[in-house]
Amino acid sequence: MTTPIVSTPECVFCGIVAGTVPCAKVAEDATTFAFMDIDPGSDGHLLVIPKRHSVDLTDIPAEDLAATTLAAQRIARAVLSELGADGVNLLNCSGPVAWQTVFHFHLHVIPRYRDKSKDRLALPFEPGLPADAAAIAERARALAAVL
Amino acid sequence: MTTPIVSTPECVFCGIVAGTVPCAKVAEDATTFAFMDIDPGSDGHLLVIPKRHSVDLTDIPAEDLAATTLAAQRIARAVLSELGADGVNLLNCSGPVAWQTVFHFHLHVIPRYRDKSKDRLALPFEPGLPADAAAIAERARALAAVL
Ligand SMILES: [Zn+2]
Ligand SMILES: [Zn+2]
Repeated sequence: MTTPIVSTPECVFCGIVAGTVPCAKVAEDATTFAFMDIDPGSDGHLLVIPKRHSVDLTDIPAEDLAATTLAAQRIARAVLSELGADGVNLLNCSGPVAWQTVFHFHLHVIPRYRDKSKDRLALPFEPGLPADAAAIAERARALAAVL
Repeated sequence: MTTPIVSTPECVFCGIVAGTVPCAKVAEDATTFAFMDIDPGSDGHLLVIPKRHSVDLTDIPAEDLAATTLAAQRIARAVLSELGADGVNLLNCSGPVAWQTVFHFHLHVIPRYRDKSKDRLALPFEPGLPADAAAIAERARALAAVL
């Protein structure tokens, strides 16, 4: 399978793939590229991207999404074995309201540590607030109708 | 491809797949199952799981991980079109320190809204703190050596 590298001139992550923007590279294969996040939320926080430009989860081709996720899994295992992490989060942010700031699809691989000097993350939402069961059931029906 | 359903008796998500634990179901295919989160972080927050039991990102088979991620993409598109979300986050939590509380692999699909009455999430880490470039480069070398 050939994966044409379609890049967008103004995209910083396409620049990283092309080698015109510097990065701390971690891994690369035919379809994906991984490098350290320059603004880490924890010790070893990195990003995995498809080499081919996609904006977000809505437009990434299935083959690129699968390859990026499987690369993230391989890297997550290395984070646990090589960096001594105690757990890991994968995060994708699609859309400005979902905290996306670079509009080339990326998966965050975020090592997690019991040692809080290496880990400054907080759960993004407060669990245990009252949940509206009727509203939840209504959302399930709306989605199930189109899936 | 056949996907044997291996379940763990004490696992609540295996119970949901088997139909012995109630849920607000959203979608199902041969490999994956999606249902509403009972403790939503935003309006329409749901979970996508492989039917076959895996604990977390470290042990899930590649085919189940790819299928679960592609199902999450389909559902994310429905969340945007049917629930009027303005963006979406995907999140996997692997390990107790990474906020995992049910030990059957799951991907959170979290709709995001500009309307904050529907969305109570906060970025899990504070961006813009000073990053240690030497430490980042060292982590990249440690990971690259094994990947
Ligand atoms: Zn790009
Ligand atoms: Zn299970």
